[in-house]
Amino acid sequence: MTTVSLDAQMMQRCLTLARRALGQTAPNPMVGAVLVKDGQIIGEGFHPGAGQPHAEVFALREAGAAARGATAYVSLEPCNHYGRTPPCAKALVEAGVAKVVVGMVDPNPLVAGGGLQTLRDAGIEVVVGVEEAACQRLNEAFVHRIVHQQLFGILKYAMTLDGKTAAVSGHSNWITQPESRARVHQMRLECDAVIVGGNTVRSDDPLLTTHGLAARNPLRVVMSRTLELPETARLWDVGKAATVVFTEAGDGVVGVGVIGDGRQSHQTQMIQLLRSRGVEVVALADLTPAAVMKNLYDRGLLSVLWECGGTLAAAAIADGSIHKVQAFIAPKIIGGSSFSPVGNLGLTRMDQALQLQQVSWQALGTDLLLEGYLRLGQEA
Amino acid sequence: MTTVSLDAQMMQRCLTLARRALGQTAPNPMVGAVLVKDGQIIGEGFHPGAGQPHAEVFALREAGAAARGATAYVSLEPCNHYGRTPPCAKALVEAGVAKVVVGMVDPNPLVAGGGLQTLRDAGIEVVVGVEEAACQRLNEAFVHRIVHQQLFGILKYAMTLDGKTAAVSGHSNWITQPESRARVHQMRLECDAVIVGGNTVRSDDPLLTTHGLAARNPLRVVMSRTLELPETARLWDVGKAATVVFTEAGDGVVGVGVIGDGRQSHQTQMIQLLRSRGVEVVALADLTPAAVMKNLYDRGLLSVLWECGGTLAAAAIADGSIHKVQAFIAPKIIGGSSFSPVGNLGLTRMDQALQLQQVSWQALGTDLLLEGYLRLGQEA
Repeated sequence: MTTVSLDAQMMQRCLTLARRALGQTAPNPMVGAVLVKDGQIIGEGFHPGAGQPHAEVFALREAGAAARGATAYVSLEPCNHYGRTPPCAKALVEAGVAKVVVGMVDPNPLVAGGGLQTLRDAGIEVVVGVEEAACQRLNEAFVHRIVHQQLFGILKYAMTLDGKTAAVSGHSNWITQPESRARVHQMRLECDAVIVGGNTVRSDDPLLTTHGLAARNPLRVVMSRTLELPETARLWDVGKAATVVFTEAGDGVVGVGVIGDGRQSHQTQMIQLLRSRGVEVVALADLTPAAVMKNLYDRGLLSVLWECGGTLAAAAIADGSIHKVQAFIAPKIIGGSSFSPVGNLGLTRMDQALQLQQVSWQALGTDLLLEGYLRLGQEA
Repeated sequence: MTTVSLDAQMMQRCLTLARRALGQTAPNPMVGAVLVKDGQIIGEGFHPGAGQPHAEVFALREAGAAARGATAYVSLEPCNHYGRTPPCAKALVEAGVAKVVVGMVDPNPLVAGGGLQTLRDAGIEVVVGVEEAACQRLNEAFVHRIVHQQLFGILKYAMTLDGKTAAVSGHSNWITQPESRARVHQMRLECDAVIVGGNTVRSDDPLLTTHGLAARNPLRVVMSRTLELPETARLWDVGKAATVVFTEAGDGVVGVGVIGDGRQSHQTQMIQLLRSRGVEVVALADLTPAAVMKNLYDRGLLSVLWECGGTLAAAAIADGSIHKVQAFIAPKIIGGSSFSPVGNLGLTRMDQALQLQQVSWQALGTDLLLEGYLRLGQEA
């Protein structure tokens, strides 16, 4: 085995460790660290979430004095600032490691390379970019947040091979196979929030949880201008997972979360009902996908999974709230034209279509999952 | 190399030879034959088309007296009947071959196995079923014709990842990459006819040829009840390829191809114009996909490629005229809901969706081609 492939192998181990905190680190990245000496792993760690120690700290603790002369593998450049813990770059220097192999540099242009410089200044050999694509991919939402000061939006939908998200009646359970639906639960685990519109609540009464895949569930988000929502919906049971409903400040709703005049409009009644169930209600001056994304960004979230219908999906694409598309395609024909994964974007020529980048696909049972990225600024 | 893999290799050679007559053999199958002696190919042949000798004849001619004691590989069971040429089974016996390896038996249940029996009765060793799946696949249209007395219908469409066959304006050139469009030309080469509806003629003015891929082009078929068609369309230039327009016998059109009363309705005027250009016009009592398929079946065709819009595609699926689906998916988002590959089938529940069988997919540039089969009798 060559040194190169050992490096790759150890970085893959870092990624495996990092993934143990999938969906739990916001606004921080997922990071894994491994300490290797004489070909043996002497310490491992991952960052469990905000407010807890970094991956390197756990690995150094496990290795103890043996860290001296060891090689440290870290999936993300060690931090160089004093936060709740001293900077990891300094800790690695003090532990006497001989070499540090880093998956990717810190995406923040203001600090990128600072941790590496601290290591190099201490005479430590530094290698950067091992398994870099995989490291970038794991933290794509974190990178997006740092670089663009915006939540990372993923549009997920399932459609038949003739492009329908439902039968002509609106019936849609189920388009895909159990393997695909299990993958959706995994996607929810990896995201910090899931968004649907009022139509989806009315027609599907979705649960939007990980279905027991993990104890953790994403924040469940509903966008509804009218609040014409069922009084009993599974989303209002916040014992399973927290739910927030975004609406628009209107006649009966003034300002963010403040109920205005004395008239009990349907909207105000619904707000009272939702709040009595423990559902958070936020009234925005202008209910747009971008405004909801901004609110969730300010809460420190990294990523959101849009599981909405075609009309809301089109609005989200149009205002730049979607950065990645995950489309499940079931090899069946249902016919019709009412239910489409993406509504009108106002694009009249085929050459205006939004081309996905870095497209990949995989089989899930008999279904196909196709993934790709929208270029920033490419939105309609 | 084992005997088994030599058999498979030689059968693949038979299939390669057979494919030289792609789209040219209707109503006959494509067949290839190879004669092997002492590990050397001593004769090869393929069936070039109806009215011409069978594959075995060419292979035996090339081998001459050396055929004695040789092994014959044939992708389809040798025929056992007197037609324009004596039965091939008899010719193989007379040539003194020692062994015959057959890809698949004759699909006609009335004759299946007869050729093999003739060979076995003459003391020749017979092996059946080598590379059978590939042999069946190559002649799936022929097999369908023999078994079901019906044309084999293939629905081909290209759509965006959000399930659209056009932008909201109707603009659709181009959804897919050049690799995919080249594959469509290949599909046309492999089919005997291509069908579109009047809408496609009006909106796309298609050529529907193999675009120079081969001298041969499929029969170009238009279905139009109203004959509200442009007076100048590329399909009316029959110098490139033959075109037939199917319409419905109505006020101005009585019976098959007969123009009725003296009033020069638009329909009768259009019929005269089309005929003056060399376009064949057929008026059916009831213009349905199945009726058009029947007419083309009676002409001895094997397969037809439906390149129509969603409304006609739905009608063709609903009346059992589609047996295979070939869907090109381009990884781009256009938005909208007007243009769908398959219109309303009247299926109101997702569990009524028509599930494709034997699904496969492949990349074509950045596009994806997904193929599958509809179960017979599964139509809506």
